[in-house]
Amino acid sequence: MPDLTHFDAEGHAHMVDVSDKAATARLAVAEGHITMRRETLDLITEGRAEKGDVIGVARLAGIMGTKKTADLIPLCHPLPVTNVSVDLVPDTALPGLRATATVKTTGQTGVEMEALTAVSTALLTVYDMVKAVERGMEIGGIRLRLKAGGKSGRYEAAP
Amino acid sequence: MPDLTHFDAEGHAHMVDVSDKAATARLAVAEGHITMRRETLDLITEGRAEKGDVIGVARLAGIMGTKKTADLIPLCHPLPVTNVSVDLVPDTALPGLRATATVKTTGQTGVEMEALTAVSTALLTVYDMVKAVERGMEIGGIRLRLKAGGKSGRYEAAP
Amino acid sequence: MPDLTHFDAEGHAHMVDVSDKAATARLAVAEGHITMRRETLDLITEGRAEKGDVIGVARLAGIMGTKKTADLIPLCHPLPVTNVSVDLVPDTALPGLRATATVKTTGQTGVEMEALTAVSTALLTVYDMVKAVERGMEIGGIRLRLKAGGKSGRYEAAP
Amino acid sequence: MPDLTHFDAEGHAHMVDVSDKAATARLAVAEGHITMRRETLDLITEGRAEKGDVIGVARLAGIMGTKKTADLIPLCHPLPVTNVSVDLVPDTALPGLRATATVKTTGQTGVEMEALTAVSTALLTVYDMVKAVERGMEIGGIRLRLKAGGKSGRYEAAP
Amino acid sequence: MPDLTHFDAEGHAHMVDVSDKAATARLAVAEGHITMRRETLDLITEGRAEKGDVIGVARLAGIMGTKKTADLIPLCHPLPVTNVSVDLVPDTALPGLRATATVKTTGQTGVEMEALTAVSTALLTVYDMVKAVERGMEIGGIRLRLKAGGKSGRYEAAP
Amino acid sequence: MPDLTHFDAEGHAHMVDVSDKAATARLAVAEGHITMRRETLDLITEGRAEKGDVIGVARLAGIMGTKKTADLIPLCHPLPVTNVSVDLVPDTALPGLRATATVKTTGQTGVEMEALTAVSTALLTVYDMVKAVERGMEIGGIRLRLKAGGKSGRYEAAP
Repeated sequence: MPDLTHFDAEGHAHMVDVSDKAATARLAVAEGHITMRRETLDLITEGRAEKGDVIGVARLAGIMGTKKTADLIPLCHPLPVTNVSVDLVPDTALPGLRATATVKTTGQTGVEMEALTAVSTALLTVYDMVKAVERGMEIGGIRLRLKAGGKSGRYEAAP
Repeated sequence: MPDLTHFDAEGHAHMVDVSDKAATARLAVAEGHITMRRETLDLITEGRAEKGDVIGVARLAGIMGTKKTADLIPLCHPLPVTNVSVDLVPDTALPGLRATATVKTTGQTGVEMEALTAVSTALLTVYDMVKAVERGMEIGGIRLRLKAGGKSGRYEAAP
Repeated sequence: MPDLTHFDAEGHAHMVDVSDKAATARLAVAEGHITMRRETLDLITEGRAEKGDVIGVARLAGIMGTKKTADLIPLCHPLPVTNVSVDLVPDTALPGLRATATVKTTGQTGVEMEALTAVSTALLTVYDMVKAVERGMEIGGIRLRLKAGGKSGRYEAAP
Repeated sequence: MPDLTHFDAEGHAHMVDVSDKAATARLAVAEGHITMRRETLDLITEGRAEKGDVIGVARLAGIMGTKKTADLIPLCHPLPVTNVSVDLVPDTALPGLRATATVKTTGQTGVEMEALTAVSTALLTVYDMVKAVERGMEIGGIRLRLKAGGKSGRYEAAP
Repeated sequence: MPDLTHFDAEGHAHMVDVSDKAATARLAVAEGHITMRRETLDLITEGRAEKGDVIGVARLAGIMGTKKTADLIPLCHPLPVTNVSVDLVPDTALPGLRATATVKTTGQTGVEMEALTAVSTALLTVYDMVKAVERGMEIGGIRLRLKAGGKSGRYEAAP
Repeated sequence: MPDLTHFDAEGHAHMVDVSDKAATARLAVAEGHITMRRETLDLITEGRAEKGDVIGVARLAGIMGTKKTADLIPLCHPLPVTNVSVDLVPDTALPGLRATATVKTTGQTGVEMEALTAVSTALLTVYDMVKAVERGMEIGGIRLRLKAGGKSGRYEAAP
């Protein structure tokens, strides 16, 4: 059975040594969603023009959250991202919003955690802005969709 | 239809004015989970003794994440929490880990976002530590379970 | 001549002792502006609908900047703000944007620095987003317009 | 008319993709000033020896502010600066203090925002330390004076 | 034997519940020192006028470090300090510098960690500024000297 | 006599210019300890299984503290570390705990401050968790044990 890389031979947590890995182009895409009542979703989508841009604020929170990843995740390597975009689109079938984050860097380790943190922060921000209307919203489906670059190679989730 | 409290009459985002609210005892409990393959869960639960305490690291990350809530969520009020606990328990039925966070404060606004951020950070931290073994883990079920204190009163989610 | 309160009798910097001051309602309003070419301003105001909401992003940056005040200003007391709003309005006479920030708290010290930091951060954020079009923009007129609450009482700037 | 680089084709804010830009030597110089009454300036300049080093504290705040740039400015890329210096000199003609910040890095994007943030933070820090003596001080003239390195080349402001 | 308060009945780390404690005046004083060669100390003390104010920079770092305590120490409660002062005095008998930090707040928990973090940060900052001259400096004697306020009452260290 | 590198010719603090230094492999090892009564040490070592893992929490705090070094130490260059490990071992002869931190990066400047900050943060965290049992614990012996890489070459402390 494989070992957990974030712990040494004695089971002590450490930040994995990536000193000897090459700095290469890295990409990660993560996704997630927040479900809510249909009326709540309508309030968000109809309100964008005059009542407040929930999606715009959540997108920005997601982008800024990316830059806090190494601060939040204890054993995560700090690294300067070179591109971040976060999209949130309404989905009446949920009903709710679907979020996707794309993050790039040139570095010695990947940006999976940055993309997942962006999605997670964007969805929490939606919850915060809408919670006075509906407390029962639920965040789910947060997962890595794509990862490219680095020694472990490409990973693509099943659809 | 209700308006979104985080935007003013012109639709501009603002931090809601809680200046005139009383500072009262507040409590929030949030929950969520991460699903994984059974072998991955076994690696986490069996490894605790000698191979590394994934759950202990995630719990601590959740507690520290609570203190970063106002930094992550743009329109969230900063407030000094007075108690935080985070629990993660293995659930072979998922299979995966279930996380619960309990946060208290005495303040002019609630701690729902702090509890949700704690759960979210703890689960992202599990993903980080275990991702080399299984990239397909998924985080879900993040929701508020209980909220007490404040003018809007008690909220309890359906089980 | 008065002494500088932020230094002790020996001239050493310290964080002023406010332990014995009452926690009262405090308000501060600050303002500032950024000047640019008329075409640049048009790009910002016309672009809001489809090309990107510069003003919305700057407003949010200002609100979030408020929460970082004690982190940026060495001798500033940390305090939890209870209300923040930031407005940016186009002024073709400048030409440019005028920013105003209103901050409230209930505390032992005022929120002047929080309001000034909000204005300053919002205007720097405008510069960042528009700099590829015009590097010669200039930020100015950053000042306190109003302060209320606390022992030193009300201050209102000349118009 | 040019587009705003910080928004994509749909007008959504994003962190500009610099992944394919070369990491080259970058330099930026920014300036600004704070105006005050002549007596207030005298208090600062005469006080340096025994009454407190306002300029020394502001300089340090400016240097430390540089390191928080990507945290403050939402769409700004994080990058490790390799040199920062901040100067504040009294100018009796203002009367007030003139601040200049010089920042360098080797990176895929420039350090204009870092230099502007350093100047802005240093001047806000002066305001904080002296505000008990004069609330009417005003911060202005914050602009980029020089930028070198990178594909967009050298920029020098008119004097 | 007493139990460790920072762990619950199951041995899980948590942030101790202080929700029901009264908000009272709290004071803590901590101390520590850094030892170095006599020539290095001379360089610091003689240099203050023209060659750079090591002590002034370290004092400011200590004050700012106080505000980061809850960010650094995982289970520490966040609380807004109301007064911080840090002193560093040369001691030719060490030889080296002796640091003392005094911190106050009105809160539900004490400020011992804030005072210890201030001392520790100030001494690390001295090391940073002087390390090119002497790498063998050593930091020691970091301890709580005095604590007052709160249910556990006054504590004073033996001299 | 050598000059202090962190101050310019006029004695002004600055962040040393490392722009022209090569990015090479850097390593630093730092150490320190905390002394306490024998019973307190026993409480920590015996308690690990069921009563709470003081050493595990302190180790994680040390690792996370490494990432905050440039935020804490005013003139320290920010740099992305590539490996961090922190060890704490009980020493009944002190009695107390001995901490060692090892930090690596590939960069233009060394990681001595990162290693020293890791040790210091880990030991402060032990103090925090155990202070309700013994307030008289003392932190000492914080020093650089080894440094390798960079123009100034290898440094090894006397044992």
